[in-house]
Amino acid sequence: MSDRKLDPRAVSGEARAGRRKERKNVKLGALDSHLGYYVRRFQVWVFQDFIRTLASADIRPAQYSVLTVIGANPGLSQSDLADTLAIERARLVHVLDKLEKRGFTERHPSPNDRRSHALHLTPEGQKMLKHLKALAGRHEAHLIETLGEDNYKSALGIFRQFGDQS
Amino acid sequence: MSDRKLDPRAVSGEARAGRRKERKNVKLGALDSHLGYYVRRFQVWVFQDFIRTLASADIRPAQYSVLTVIGANPGLSQSDLADTLAIERARLVHVLDKLEKRGFTERHPSPNDRRSHALHLTPEGQKMLKHLKALAGRHEAHLIETLGEDNYKSALGIFRQFGDQS
Repeated sequence: MSDRKLDPRAVSGEARAGRRKERKNVKLGALDSHLGYYVRRFQVWVFQDFIRTLASADIRPAQYSVLTVIGANPGLSQSDLADTLAIERARLVHVLDKLEKRGFTERHPSPNDRRSHALHLTPEGQKMLKHLKALAGRHEAHLIETLGEDNYKSALGIFRQFGDQS
Repeated sequence: MSDRKLDPRAVSGEARAGRRKERKNVKLGALDSHLGYYVRRFQVWVFQDFIRTLASADIRPAQYSVLTVIGANPGLSQSDLADTLAIERARLVHVLDKLEKRGFTERHPSPNDRRSHALHLTPEGQKMLKHLKALAGRHEAHLIETLGEDNYKSALGIFRQFGDQS
């Protein structure tokens, strides 16, 4: 039986420590000195928590990113959105198809470029985004609680700075 | 033409700043206050750098992780390896099939459990792992250089601590 699928919020520190003891003593070897290994583990955990917290709205991280950036930049072109989020064009089209089908986004012909589309949220999309932001706030609060406030702030500072450079 | 596919190591700080200025002023909206957004951007960059640095050996991050942990724990079972790396069983079998085909790993019948396999590196696999560790060291040095040593150490400390808890 595995208890690793439990919501970590439901597991006390004591229970967690006990579980650690039960685990086989497997050495990580050189992985222990790779930041990428630990960042990947953390990123997977964050996405799982995000998906769980937004499950009632059935919205995935990429969909949330797309809705948020369109909401903050009405009329944005698909190519600028793809560049901003570093999403491949084909994948973005797929995400937009899904959001459009649910009535949250619209593609209008661009006033500047016939080959491009200007992206907008529908009124329904704006309402949904407001709801999603509230749920995403709960996810973020859980993240702060899990890492501790100082660690959270340090990590956000480091990676934000990196995001500006990359 | 896009210059975003250039190796970032080949782009001077000055060129990078110029490129930033050229970018459209797209607002991130609420994404800017999500650690998960920035961690995901960073993790994608790290994996791309890792894959590029190990391209001559044609080894992906998951394959490297599997070789490293088997190398550090000869005779490890498939299920303990999957648990340690939090890889789904089916995906692990796929990775092991590829590594076995290249002559780097072997599955022996487990002495303790007939349903399980004990995993070992072949002499060829040990040689390859030594070579990969040298390449992965270059990737890590590049990471330290990119983040700055203090940021690198802070991030490793924070996420290692998280990895112990999760």
